[in-house]
Amino acid sequence: MPTIDELATFCKKKGFVYPSAEIYNSLAGFFDLGPLGVELSTNIKAHWWHHFVRSREDVVGIDGSIITHPKVWRASGHLDSFEDIFVEDVKTKERYRADHLVEDALKIPTDGMSVEQLWQIIQKHELKSPKGNPLSQPNKFNLMFHTNIGSIRDEKSTAYLRPETAQNIFINFKAVQETSRLKLPFGIAQIGKGFRNEISPRDFLFRVREFEMMELEYFFDHATASKLKPKNLKLTFLSQEEQHKKSPKTEATTIVQLLASKKLAVTHAYWLAEAYQWFLKLGLKKENLRIREHTKEELSHYSTATFDIEYLFPFGWKELQGCANRGMYDLTQHEKHSNTKLSVFDEDTKQKILPSVIEPAWGVGRTFLALLLDAYNDDKKRGNIVLKLNPKLAPIQVGVFPLVKNKKQIVKKAREIFNALKQNFTTTYDESGSIGRRYARADELGIPFCITVDFDSLKDKKVTIRNRDTTKQIHVKASELKDIISKIMTGTPFEKCGKLMN
Amino acid sequence: MPTIDELATFCKKKGFVYPSAEIYNSLAGFFDLGPLGVELSTNIKAHWWHHFVRSREDVVGIDGSIITHPKVWRASGHLDSFEDIFVEDVKTKERYRADHLVEDALKIPTDGMSVEQLWQIIQKHELKSPKGNPLSQPNKFNLMFHTNIGSIRDEKSTAYLRPETAQNIFINFKAVQETSRLKLPFGIAQIGKGFRNEISPRDFLFRVREFEMMELEYFFDHATASKLKPKNLKLTFLSQEEQHKKSPKTEATTIVQLLASKKLAVTHAYWLAEAYQWFLKLGLKKENLRIREHTKEELSHYSTATFDIEYLFPFGWKELQGCANRGMYDLTQHEKHSNTKLSVFDEDTKQKILPSVIEPAWGVGRTFLALLLDAYNDDKKRGNIVLKLNPKLAPIQVGVFPLVKNKKQIVKKAREIFNALKQNFTTTYDESGSIGRRYARADELGIPFCITVDFDSLKDKKVTIRNRDTTKQIHVKASELKDIISKIMTGTPFEKCGKLMN
Repeated sequence: MPTIDELATFCKKKGFVYPSAEIYNSLAGFFDLGPLGVELSTNIKAHWWHHFVRSREDVVGIDGSIITHPKVWRASGHLDSFEDIFVEDVKTKERYRADHLVEDALKIPTDGMSVEQLWQIIQKHELKSPKGNPLSQPNKFNLMFHTNIGSIRDEKSTAYLRPETAQNIFINFKAVQETSRLKLPFGIAQIGKGFRNEISPRDFLFRVREFEMMELEYFFDHATASKLKPKNLKLTFLSQEEQHKKSPKTEATTIVQLLASKKLAVTHAYWLAEAYQWFLKLGLKKENLRIREHTKEELSHYSTATFDIEYLFPFGWKELQGCANRGMYDLTQHEKHSNTKLSVFDEDTKQKILPSVIEPAWGVGRTFLALLLDAYNDDKKRGNIVLKLNPKLAPIQVGVFPLVKNKKQIVKKAREIFNALKQNFTTTYDESGSIGRRYARADELGIPFCITVDFDSLKDKKVTIRNRDTTKQIHVKASELKDIISKIMTGTPFEKCGKLMN
Repeated sequence: MPTIDELATFCKKKGFVYPSAEIYNSLAGFFDLGPLGVELSTNIKAHWWHHFVRSREDVVGIDGSIITHPKVWRASGHLDSFEDIFVEDVKTKERYRADHLVEDALKIPTDGMSVEQLWQIIQKHELKSPKGNPLSQPNKFNLMFHTNIGSIRDEKSTAYLRPETAQNIFINFKAVQETSRLKLPFGIAQIGKGFRNEISPRDFLFRVREFEMMELEYFFDHATASKLKPKNLKLTFLSQEEQHKKSPKTEATTIVQLLASKKLAVTHAYWLAEAYQWFLKLGLKKENLRIREHTKEELSHYSTATFDIEYLFPFGWKELQGCANRGMYDLTQHEKHSNTKLSVFDEDTKQKILPSVIEPAWGVGRTFLALLLDAYNDDKKRGNIVLKLNPKLAPIQVGVFPLVKNKKQIVKKAREIFNALKQNFTTTYDESGSIGRRYARADELGIPFCITVDFDSLKDKKVTIRNRDTTKQIHVKASELKDIISKIMTGTPFEKCGKLMN
């Protein structure tokens, strides 16, 4: 696996990710997706939406506004509780997250520590800023970005950029339920950007100020037995209790065992399994995934139990996905603050029910990052990077190369194939440089299938397809390319789709 | 065509669009897309991206940050020039756009009028606010939403929410060109949200404060003859000159005639035709579209010529799409302000070229609105609304209905069909109410194809497909449904796909 800096450099060089406004010396914590990045990100989101929304009967989507009514964040608790603690370098006036600073310096966990506790530790160990200067007393800071609506800038016109998409779902819960005639249990899903004014953004796409989320709020009657059955997956688990020990250990377990141990409710277990399995489906390596139970100290203000799916990033095990039990917290708060009834009438029991909520939430950027880290192979034998992305997610799926560019008929044939394939796959045409050079370039862009049109193609109407991961090549009829590539993408082994070449 | 209020009511009732934070009395100028709205919007964007990016060889995409470096907006001219003029009701302190107020009261055009000119007119005609009170002297107001990055709120930490996505493209121009090895002419496309602090948002989704755009910047060497050939479409045209007359008239013309009249450059004509044709492809009615040339007074600060594709909204002809010639304005400004060379080395002429730019820009919300307005049919004979959306864009493409819900085998068969089809089409299952009631409901949601499983289906394995637009039904084999629906979607006449029923 590359270091995070190696990956960032690679991403910039190949057009996956650029720092935002680099010609103006960049804006810390903001990134722009380049031509390859936007395709990968679009594919991740489309895959998620199809898997969790369109192909399910019990989930619908919404797309809410980013600038949101201030009362929403009063009700949700974010105006009061969505805070980080910072310290200031007394000389440079630069600010740092106090918990990160303590963790980095002393290698101790700081989850849930108060301003006072952090200040005691800083004083006791005489911690300095990364620049070597003394630190100020810690202070709290709300992470929401503010703005003003209308031409007057005052308290009354202040609104917030959403720090999570979940609240759009809660405030629309009743309208969606009624207009879509939904019966419990059901989910409402959303993909969209969120904004957090992080004190010290870091680790490339991992901790940024503007990021995209894929969230799902699953509403159910906690008094009724769940109809959902969690898929029973094997996984690596780090329990709440272990994390209080000096050398915490993970254990091998299954979702059903976790369920049996009463660590989580059935609906919670179901969504944890679904979230976990989706990552496997994308092609993430199982050994880089584990489940971690949040300690009581670090639970968000709205959650009674949270399980993270963590990924082994180059900077350690960190949250890739979070699965929180938000209970009735949000709907209760919004009922109170908006003075609106949000309960649902249940035809079966003839009762009004305020549902409980399980929230599985994915970061698009973190999924993007994990996929690239897993896919990145520095192939010493080939002498280039090979990006082994799932062909369904690859930004470019097919490359079409004429063997030479000065032979009219070969170029014509290659362009015919290119024009036909690009209606069905993201396809690139490349005629510059030797064929080996073009294969190497394709490897680095993660193009799973490269088609070469050579002199023989003009006679036998056949072309070669090269497999990015193995460099093996098969010889196939040009007229059957679309079907063959579709077949390989849906699971038929590459070697079975044509005559294997030497 | 419905009034805009009728459409807004319909959209809320059916789950297309809700006012943002309605349980907190809403936030003016902000909307949330509901379950049907998000699907329609997603389909519009995916169609655009495939048409203008993935299926073209000369266009790549990016996805830039919403919060942008303040220097970007200094260079782009937005900090100085992106302003509207407002007047204040001296009693209520409510603010209104001065140009809208004058236009509404006096029915005269106000394009490009200065603060002084508007104030003279207001005084001369003794115009009052909509509440009947006197008005203040007009004032300028910058439309960009501001925020602060980091924990200190001052001038230095101020950043802006982008009012257009175009600038992300200009500041990444050089990086994209190099990493994607692009040669002029080429385009960079982007879909994303923009924010404008409108003084008086109005007309439902038409003038809002948060909106989504689909923009494309096409870079070319203005000294080289264009290789592009504009499609020659017939259209209705309102020229710059006509708009200075008392009763402006449109004329029937073609893109090639416009080109010959030297009103616009070849590349500009090409993109105007492409933009226009895309709307026809989506299914918009030609009679509701016209081209209008911007008058000199209303041209944006960066444009030398702009042509709008206008749509006949219930509140008149208004911009649906804009096609601007931005020349070298933006790249020149960014070269100057960032002190970075942005020219491209041309292999053929061995020269460095700072390209010119044509910008076709579409509003997602306005396209959404036009599609719904065009599709909305109040069918008196059927007694319900029929939403005749293009089946490729429809939020739900297929409905599956068991004739009755108390016959186990019929329900089982219907659910089998539903489960199979929902892998390929957005599909809904509905068993509640009479079949007529379900068809009516499907009409209102714009579901183009409804499949009914009846008693005969159990014997002959056949089902009926009902056509939303004609109510005609065909009898087809259940096993062939996927292929048949795909065929109809790609243009095979409905009646040819099965046995027509009475």
